[in-house]
Amino acid sequence: MSDVLERLAEVLEARKQAAPDTSYVASLHHKGLNKILEKVGEECTETLLAAKDAEQSGQTRELVAETADLWFHSLVMLSHLDLGPDDVLAELANRFGLSGLEEKASRNS
Amino acid sequence: MSDVLERLAEVLEARKQAAPDTSYVASLHHKGLNKILEKVGEECTETLLAAKDAEQSGQTRELVAETADLWFHSLVMLSHLDLGPDDVLAELANRFGLSGLEEKASRNS
Amino acid sequence: MSDVLERLAEVLEARKQAAPDTSYVASLHHKGLNKILEKVGEECTETLLAAKDAEQSGQTRELVAETADLWFHSLVMLSHLDLGPDDVLAELANRFGLSGLEEKASRNS
Amino acid sequence: MSDVLERLAEVLEARKQAAPDTSYVASLHHKGLNKILEKVGEECTETLLAAKDAEQSGQTRELVAETADLWFHSLVMLSHLDLGPDDVLAELANRFGLSGLEEKASRNS
Repeated sequence: MSDVLERLAEVLEARKQAAPDTSYVASLHHKGLNKILEKVGEECTETLLAAKDAEQSGQTRELVAETADLWFHSLVMLSHLDLGPDDVLAELANRFGLSGLEEKASRNS
Repeated sequence: MSDVLERLAEVLEARKQAAPDTSYVASLHHKGLNKILEKVGEECTETLLAAKDAEQSGQTRELVAETADLWFHSLVMLSHLDLGPDDVLAELANRFGLSGLEEKASRNS
Repeated sequence: MSDVLERLAEVLEARKQAAPDTSYVASLHHKGLNKILEKVGEECTETLLAAKDAEQSGQTRELVAETADLWFHSLVMLSHLDLGPDDVLAELANRFGLSGLEEKASRNS
Repeated sequence: MSDVLERLAEVLEARKQAAPDTSYVASLHHKGLNKILEKVGEECTETLLAAKDAEQSGQTRELVAETADLWFHSLVMLSHLDLGPDDVLAELANRFGLSGLEEKASRNS
């Protein structure tokens, strides 16, 4: 699963250039940043509600789907501003010393 | 960068078991789902504001940091409900035919 | 303007009982709390974006419209749980000593 | 209860001018629009969570308190951009024919 975000980012970059009426992603870019951010906010709300429901019911399928929607639209947002998942993953790796460990490991090997 | 989410998920699982006063993640789990979801919502708002500011200023550093906060707290949420990034990545791979391509490739090889 | 929320609440109560296909409010109640809360979250996001745009442009018309949407859907939420604007206004009056001043005044008169 | 928003708006205008270290409202204005909008988003999230909990438990006290927080911080937002509750209430009255009907009715009586 580890390279899904990177491969999805490639798909998103390709669709960014498509005609707005041929692709959902292209139509979002065409409508502009506000429309993309509205979707991010909307999917965040749906994620919170799905998490509350999952805690009650023990059913997690909806929560997984909504979190996927949230991550997906945040990738579109990054793409719209010429960023990608690697920028965010590098920040997380840096904060948690994950890249540090990796570097150290590769230097030792 | 591709395995950062998985490695971060391992760190989060370890901290889930820690004493609440020794780890931020452990304290979030101890406070419960509502506190975790409040953080997800808070970081989503900060991401939206940072995206608006990035569009104006061309400076994207804050947006990357806030998106990292959003993804991080959504990982804590998943962990709290015994899920992980692979559940979400599998959903995304499935939707975009990324896993399909992978399967086909591996069957052909 | 001061009684608009109360009068709107009366309109909302009447529509709560209407057939779902004859009224937007009735259709929201019929779809249930999650749908109503999705709308509250959605309008909150649109309010934040409109506020950022208003700060840039000096144009406040969109912000007023989005804040009206946010308050409107929070009234539908209150109505769905058998609450109304007076419950929230009483809380605000109480916090800010506004009802206290009123009570003191009425006791003195 | 009907004039609480207007009276609260007067309190907020007075505090807008206060020294940042003497008033919560003044400190919000001093920190700027982003900080105010972060609070609006935060209180919206807490309102959604409180509504879900109220539906489960039948206890509505927390929901009333969180909705009050949401409305309060949206008033601070309006004030920061030189707007007030009357702008929003006029929009709502206009949409629902409340102001029009009232004026007509009072002129006819």
